[in-house]
Amino acid sequence: MKTFEYVEGGVTAARGFRASGVAAGIKYQNRTDVALVAADAPAAVAAVYTTNKVAAAPVQVDRERTRTGRAQAVIVNSGCANACTGETGLKNAREMARLAAEALGVDEDLVLVCSTGVIGVNLPMDRVAEGAKSAAAALSRTGGDAAAHAIMTTDTVDKQVAVELEIDGKTVCIGGMCKGSGMIEPNMATMLGFLTTDAAIHAKALDQALREAVDVSFNHVVVDGDRSTNDTVILMASGAADNKMLTPYHSQWQYFVDALTTVCLELGKKMVMDGEGATKFVTVRVKGARTDEDAEKAARAISKSALVKTSWFGIDPNWGRVIAAVGYSGAEVDDQKAQIYYGHICAYDQGRVADASLLKEMQALMRKRAFDVTVNLNLGSGEDTIYTCDLSHDYVKINAEYTT
Amino acid sequence: MKTFEYVEGGVTAARGFRASGVAAGIKYQNRTDVALVAADAPAAVAAVYTTNKVAAAPVQVDRERTRTGRAQAVIVNSGCANACTGETGLKNAREMARLAAEALGVDEDLVLVCSTGVIGVNLPMDRVAEGAKSAAAALSRTGGDAAAHAIMTTDTVDKQVAVELEIDGKTVCIGGMCKGSGMIEPNMATMLGFLTTDAAIHAKALDQALREAVDVSFNHVVVDGDRSTNDTVILMASGAADNKMLTPYHSQWQYFVDALTTVCLELGKKMVMDGEGATKFVTVRVKGARTDEDAEKAARAISKSALVKTSWFGIDPNWGRVIAAVGYSGAEVDDQKAQIYYGHICAYDQGRVADASLLKEMQALMRKRAFDVTVNLNLGSGEDTIYTCDLSHDYVKINAEYTT
Repeated sequence: MKTFEYVEGGVTAARGFRASGVAAGIKYQNRTDVALVAADAPAAVAAVYTTNKVAAAPVQVDRERTRTGRAQAVIVNSGCANACTGETGLKNAREMARLAAEALGVDEDLVLVCSTGVIGVNLPMDRVAEGAKSAAAALSRTGGDAAAHAIMTTDTVDKQVAVELEIDGKTVCIGGMCKGSGMIEPNMATMLGFLTTDAAIHAKALDQALREAVDVSFNHVVVDGDRSTNDTVILMASGAADNKMLTPYHSQWQYFVDALTTVCLELGKKMVMDGEGATKFVTVRVKGARTDEDAEKAARAISKSALVKTSWFGIDPNWGRVIAAVGYSGAEVDDQKAQIYYGHICAYDQGRVADASLLKEMQALMRKRAFDVTVNLNLGSGEDTIYTCDLSHDYVKINAEYTT
Repeated sequence: MKTFEYVEGGVTAARGFRASGVAAGIKYQNRTDVALVAADAPAAVAAVYTTNKVAAAPVQVDRERTRTGRAQAVIVNSGCANACTGETGLKNAREMARLAAEALGVDEDLVLVCSTGVIGVNLPMDRVAEGAKSAAAALSRTGGDAAAHAIMTTDTVDKQVAVELEIDGKTVCIGGMCKGSGMIEPNMATMLGFLTTDAAIHAKALDQALREAVDVSFNHVVVDGDRSTNDTVILMASGAADNKMLTPYHSQWQYFVDALTTVCLELGKKMVMDGEGATKFVTVRVKGARTDEDAEKAARAISKSALVKTSWFGIDPNWGRVIAAVGYSGAEVDDQKAQIYYGHICAYDQGRVADASLLKEMQALMRKRAFDVTVNLNLGSGEDTIYTCDLSHDYVKINAEYTT
């Protein structure tokens, strides 16, 4: 696979986009909470949304609007999810987009809207109006950083990634930012992701590329197994790179998809690293499964098990909890054939338990910030990888104290 | 429904059974760790086992033996699960039963065996042999209490329940004990349950009664969503009550099943109350679901959500997390129709959020040791109830420090 060059700039790394982040006092004090990302002209757009049956108002609005394949801006607020807010919530979401459209001087149907924060609270529309105005005024070609900060909730760091690649001899950039640190599970729980590219690409192809990228990235990170009402990933393409129009038939299609996947995966990993209370970044690999689906079931069960996650926090190579999780995952498993590794050290080998002398070695490995747990089921060629974290005292503290 | 009288005695409340608990030094110091429950003569037996595909050696042995519908004793050790121990484990489980059979002077095929504790460690057979011998010598008609203590692992209290009822004018007793406080989820994770009755009942009918009772009791308690390799519930019937043989065609059949269900449910509740680190006992009721299956999906998702469980610990009536869990449960839900109650107080009513003045009242309710969370989906007549607990600092502490 060709490699890509990492560059600075996040969501404004790609040409044709400006962004900003401003303080509107939605909920938090002394911080920014409204972000705006705007293309210089109508752009191709693709998006994926939460699978939660309780979808927040902005998700309902955006689902409708992104069907056209065209958009020019996204306005985002943190501090209030505008979820479970009924007709008022829908009206407010549309009004928030209209306010941004007015400030930008663009068609309101081309403006998307996202919210993240507490459920069941209405948006303070006067502050949103102020925020929309000042965010539009603050837009700049270097505003990616400000935007990435304004969308944070319990995140402790901003999350941005951008890469450059060459397509048709032209430099193409793909950049993005995201927020999310709790409630993250398959299907992108309480996460918002915003991606931009200057590639010239058909909207339908953009949609295909985004789905392929999200499936193996954002949909493969697990923090606590909850899925939110607001999850959204939006990708806009300005076409400013002036490459030949990308479609799946373009000779460099896969290269583009790989680059997009890399951006999504790196953003996803940043979310796990910033998982609420997380002290460990754990890559769970399951191989030798009967099928890829079995491998995914097993990897997800391991990654979501509270018992496994607390053992990681406790620096305890408790492979018994790992195999128990595989056992109830629904995946085919024979404990007399399975092997479990912490890093390169085999803790359990087809019925044989690792020598006690290896325990210290495994614990040394688990004391690192990041390690791998690999399960080889030795039943076939199915495999899957999930990126996840441990379950610590601080997870409980953060989520017990985060208030309604 | 007729009521039952609660009595003392646990697993030895029913006539025809003796029990004991002795210290064999399997793993723990200064405590008992081998329990024996023995019928005076071969009894009818029924059992249900873990659905985990990785089944421990004793589960494999018992599955085979309980098919006959007859058993006379169960020997149990704590401290070692004898799981993922391959051929040696199977040999050891059979030998453990044989040792008990020898000490009791009964056919070894009539002896069942259970283990609970750490996975992947072989039983110390010399100590098991000593334990079997002294447990047989210690058997008594009042040994239920000693047995209930010997099967504990991270349990902080013993768990026993017994009831008396009248069938055919005869007094029938159903009693039991169980252990389990972590890894408890549907399908009885890391739980062992032992039930005895002096009812005269056909083995097939006993099996049917046990399955009905377990389904609405042990299978409806959730601590952390993990399921173990060793879960087992065994019910033996001595026939000493001398009632007319119970079958589903007996006029008092349902009365017997209800009593058995009550014993199982009370034992299940005791496990939740003793859930690792649990500070709250929460009854999650979902009603108005499209179907009972939908109600169960929703109730389980709520009960397993780390975000919901930490909000209970934090005395935070965070109904947003509750409805988000319902949203991803797979159950049909319309957030504009749903209602969420903490106790009798409505926190969310079909799009309307409870007045802030009720917050203090809800928090006062949540400060109690036990409270209900009720979700009315207002879509049909499906309902389900799950008994569960919160997720506290201590859950993490206990499970991070419990060592491999």
